[in-house]
Amino acid sequence: MAKTYKKADFPVAGIRRFLEPGPIVLVSTHWKGKHNIMTMGWHTVMEFSPSLIGCMITAANHSYGMLEKSGECVINIPEIHLIDEVIGIGNTRGTRVDKFRKFGLTPEPGEVVDAPVIKECYANFECKVADRRMLDKYNFFILECVKAHVPARPKFPKTLHYRGEGIFMLSGRHVAKPELFRPGNI
Amino acid sequence: MAKTYKKADFPVAGIRRFLEPGPIVLVSTHWKGKHNIMTMGWHTVMEFSPSLIGCMITAANHSYGMLEKSGECVINIPEIHLIDEVIGIGNTRGTRVDKFRKFGLTPEPGEVVDAPVIKECYANFECKVADRRMLDKYNFFILECVKAHVPARPKFPKTLHYRGEGIFMLSGRHVAKPELFRPGNI
Repeated sequence: MAKTYKKADFPVAGIRRFLEPGPIVLVSTHWKGKHNIMTMGWHTVMEFSPSLIGCMITAANHSYGMLEKSGECVINIPEIHLIDEVIGIGNTRGTRVDKFRKFGLTPEPGEVVDAPVIKECYANFECKVADRRMLDKYNFFILECVKAHVPARPKFPKTLHYRGEGIFMLSGRHVAKPELFRPGNI
Repeated sequence: MAKTYKKADFPVAGIRRFLEPGPIVLVSTHWKGKHNIMTMGWHTVMEFSPSLIGCMITAANHSYGMLEKSGECVINIPEIHLIDEVIGIGNTRGTRVDKFRKFGLTPEPGEVVDAPVIKECYANFECKVADRRMLDKYNFFILECVKAHVPARPKFPKTLHYRGEGIFMLSGRHVAKPELFRPGNI
């Protein structure tokens, strides 16, 4: 459980490496002295530079209001060993409990945003809300990643991918076929 | 290679089961008597019902114009054995070649849309463009899935998940923990 990572700055234009495969992420927020965390599966990369991420957050979530008001969050990528925490965080209302304390996670200060970085996660992407125009109709935030923290090892995290009905797909092995790609198209 | 699936109608509100884990998909389009296919990794589920999918398609892609003009496409989920076709389709300009012929894929008529269903893919989601307001700034289509074709077996496809730099993550094993979820929150 006490897995630790030695993280360094990572180019924000390159975080698609971790998000495009579609992992479940934990979104941490801060507003008026309080932290919160939610589990999120509905997100997509939208642009390399600026480093844009689109995500749908149900307005009933406590985190929706915290993100909407503060304009900031951190997207954290948990590895498989945190599966019970991922489910528990998704099950728990942030209005009533401190999820960091309840789930034994450590909030570290963001470098650029006030939202906390979750130390126990593989990678952390500090984000600011870049566009709110899709909120009213779709609860869809467009975020810009402004700072990324990623460990050199492991090169790729072992991630959780959600299918609904309580079923997770786990990330599997990797296949590298760069020789088949056209330059500039990779 | 000649893997076949016995597909049936699948509830469109349930296709998150296949898209939320983040697979690479093939997007097929039809416009003025011609078909095209593109490889796409930047997509997210946005709503259960209506069944909404958001996706970013670079405007330089031939498929962008075909989707924008026709207002229709099919999202097809390829399994791992189609990896070379997935890469080849991403490498090839649809203005010059018939990708179905070049890559040995079979276009079948959509039931609701004129875009072709790719027979060799695991699942096919017929879609109509539901919202174009994010096209100008982000090339971001909001699609509504209006018809889904999915086989009963295998229950879950073996999918490709792209990381960039020619590297694919393959889907791994599944873990079911429905007992840990709060009812209504699953």
